[in-house]
Amino acid sequence: MSHDIRRLSERKRRGEELSAEEIGGLVEAYTAGAIDDAPMAAWLMAVCCAGMTDEETWRLTDAMARSGEMLDLSGVGRPTVDKHSTGGVGDKVTLVAAPIAAACGACVAKMSGRGLGHTGGTIDKLEAVPGLRTDLSAARFLAQAREVGLVVAAQSASLAPADGKMYALRDATGTVDSRALIAASIMSKKIAAGSAAIVLDVTVGSGAFMRSADEARALAELMVAPGRRAGRRVGAVLTDMSTPLGRAVGNAIEVEEAVQVLRGGGPGDVREVSLTIAGWMLVAAGTAAEFEDGLARAREAVASGRALDCLARMVEAQGGDAGALERPMLGHRGHEVGAWPAPAAGIVTRIDARGVGYAALAAGAGRRHKGDDIDPAAGVRLLRVEGDEVERGEAVAEAMAGSPDRLREALAELDGAIVISDRAPEERALVIETTPPEGGA
Amino acid sequence: MSHDIRRLSERKRRGEELSAEEIGGLVEAYTAGAIDDAPMAAWLMAVCCAGMTDEETWRLTDAMARSGEMLDLSGVGRPTVDKHSTGGVGDKVTLVAAPIAAACGACVAKMSGRGLGHTGGTIDKLEAVPGLRTDLSAARFLAQAREVGLVVAAQSASLAPADGKMYALRDATGTVDSRALIAASIMSKKIAAGSAAIVLDVTVGSGAFMRSADEARALAELMVAPGRRAGRRVGAVLTDMSTPLGRAVGNAIEVEEAVQVLRGGGPGDVREVSLTIAGWMLVAAGTAAEFEDGLARAREAVASGRALDCLARMVEAQGGDAGALERPMLGHRGHEVGAWPAPAAGIVTRIDARGVGYAALAAGAGRRHKGDDIDPAAGVRLLRVEGDEVERGEAVAEAMAGSPDRLREALAELDGAIVISDRAPEERALVIETTPPEGGA
Repeated sequence: MSHDIRRLSERKRRGEELSAEEIGGLVEAYTAGAIDDAPMAAWLMAVCCAGMTDEETWRLTDAMARSGEMLDLSGVGRPTVDKHSTGGVGDKVTLVAAPIAAACGACVAKMSGRGLGHTGGTIDKLEAVPGLRTDLSAARFLAQAREVGLVVAAQSASLAPADGKMYALRDATGTVDSRALIAASIMSKKIAAGSAAIVLDVTVGSGAFMRSADEARALAELMVAPGRRAGRRVGAVLTDMSTPLGRAVGNAIEVEEAVQVLRGGGPGDVREVSLTIAGWMLVAAGTAAEFEDGLARAREAVASGRALDCLARMVEAQGGDAGALERPMLGHRGHEVGAWPAPAAGIVTRIDARGVGYAALAAGAGRRHKGDDIDPAAGVRLLRVEGDEVERGEAVAEAMAGSPDRLREALAELDGAIVISDRAPEERALVIETTPPEGGA
Repeated sequence: MSHDIRRLSERKRRGEELSAEEIGGLVEAYTAGAIDDAPMAAWLMAVCCAGMTDEETWRLTDAMARSGEMLDLSGVGRPTVDKHSTGGVGDKVTLVAAPIAAACGACVAKMSGRGLGHTGGTIDKLEAVPGLRTDLSAARFLAQAREVGLVVAAQSASLAPADGKMYALRDATGTVDSRALIAASIMSKKIAAGSAAIVLDVTVGSGAFMRSADEARALAELMVAPGRRAGRRVGAVLTDMSTPLGRAVGNAIEVEEAVQVLRGGGPGDVREVSLTIAGWMLVAAGTAAEFEDGLARAREAVASGRALDCLARMVEAQGGDAGALERPMLGHRGHEVGAWPAPAAGIVTRIDARGVGYAALAAGAGRRHKGDDIDPAAGVRLLRVEGDEVERGEAVAEAMAGSPDRLREALAELDGAIVISDRAPEERALVIETTPPEGGA
């Protein structure tokens, strides 16, 4: 096989299309340890350089999805729907949209990731709830899906194990940035996780992997196609990630903000994106006939408090203290809090998502390296947003950190992230465009 | 550093030029074991895909040359000149040209490689001489260079160790086929080996790495430039490698054929290429003012027997039995000999170099994998060459092997390598073009 992968790398590099057998054999052998990291890294770089056809992306996604267990959610008794975001800063949409969809009769049985670098992860946020566990066995995951209709667990190593191994290698070898590899990585996990419908939130802007709408659209197409080919009903929504979503960037404070939105308050941008995603999730699940219907049901689930109840039931089922959802910062405290004052009077022209993500990372809310510990109480709170007028010295943001050094670092990152000037901010649509859910049974 | 190499791979992939510090740091860290194989393999693939500028090729060559010991040949008392062939089938030019150049007053102190796959290696051929050793210490190498003016040793691991490690990785990861990497691999060793002048024999055709004259010309340019930049006088000759050079392909039989040429006989193509290379070596060394002068001196060194004497002195100095040079096949015997008969009467339209190389490999003359043993007596002898007329059943070639199985395999390879038809063979120039030696002190 080591001889074969060399030839596959050479052929891929020359732009040749690899067959399902070739890609399947490669994924199987690498997962089984029959191919070393070095030739696999060279193959991944050849893919980054030469790209993959849609057909190859499907073959890779399918091989990775089949590399381990495939969850069967057909016994949960409700239409199943999953959602995935390609990552961002302040992105707590899962914490709002999933309880809404579950409250409206869909089953959301979702595996999520942890944060790395400037982007946060839903699992880290959930684990800020005291007692809440995300390392669920398959049996417990399925039981909670059946009983609560809502479960969010850490990605299981037994689903799509090829992806776990390949992602670690890509991270170590500078081969992360390939649309085909990103699409296969995401969709293999979604397909193995068993939901019949999937809504993708493809983020665009400085805080996201995709910097332009064109890139994001291309990625969305690459993800939607294999999902539908695997028999799932898949749609995608492109959303802006140029500036943080909402005002809270961290872990405890993001759950707090999600709860505010589920209570009918909170920042308008979080509400708009979350209701939009929830509305499409209901359409994808077949619970709503069309988007306007889905949106109306979603709003009603928030207004009635049923969505928040649903989140609380999930927290309890996973061992968490649902009462913490009522307390500021879930009862956590940031030991050191410092303001970022406006250096001059003017307009908040720009709050850069990536820069704020790095500030939260510096404060302790994220991981520089896989496996690093995170501080649930650390983060950045925006007191003003783009377009606000501020006085000189007025606090535009504040950071919370576990030590004065981390606080200083976080505030220094904000220097590069926030621009106060006399210019109005760039106009941007929050929901850029939508690919309605299609496919599946 | 592992963080840095990822960024270097990403930047290289996007076609950015890397600085001398970046490339130097990478080579140093990889040689020292501070960078793992997987990220290095990804970087090498990024180089294969995106290419390198001439400036980068120089930086890589220089860093690899400096990764170990740099031999100092300034004390040998004669102008030093090295030669290198990019590989072929039946290529015994070093065994003829180096003794000629040494007999004409130059010092040829050369490190050579072993064969792999369909291509032979000078070291394997020399080791077919009973008793001859090629694993010389630096002190013994320098002493023989001074005393005999001719020494051919196996590549020392202390010269350009980065190349040894990178070559093994490239071989395992499908990243061999990059002109910039090939050029840096060859020239780093030549520069570290210390000769003031270098003549490159860049082979073209099915038996060579470069299949077209355009590719070979581009490779020659990539090798000549860094050599000159390192202060060496460098020239290149493009020669044909579509059909084997000479009639003997193996180890003992190739030394035998080289000795025939040094006696004034042997196949015309071996003589022509060897005299051409030797003539340019004398020009490069400054021993001859121009090529015609160098060629005349080379012819004279053969006619007078001084070149053969020089080879015999080298063989003795390296512990070999110089008397073996007088015996058929150096005293070795091929246990099984079988003929390849012409399947029909006609013209020998094609004898493919690569196919004959694979036949010799199957017979036992070469290595399928690094470290395999070779059989000095095994090989293929061409009894007819392209353009000859043959009768049906007439022996066109014969193979010598250590077992009936190997013999059968070798003859089967010849089925795919030899074409008998009514068409005349393609006309090809043996010496395609020349880049005269320039540069240096």
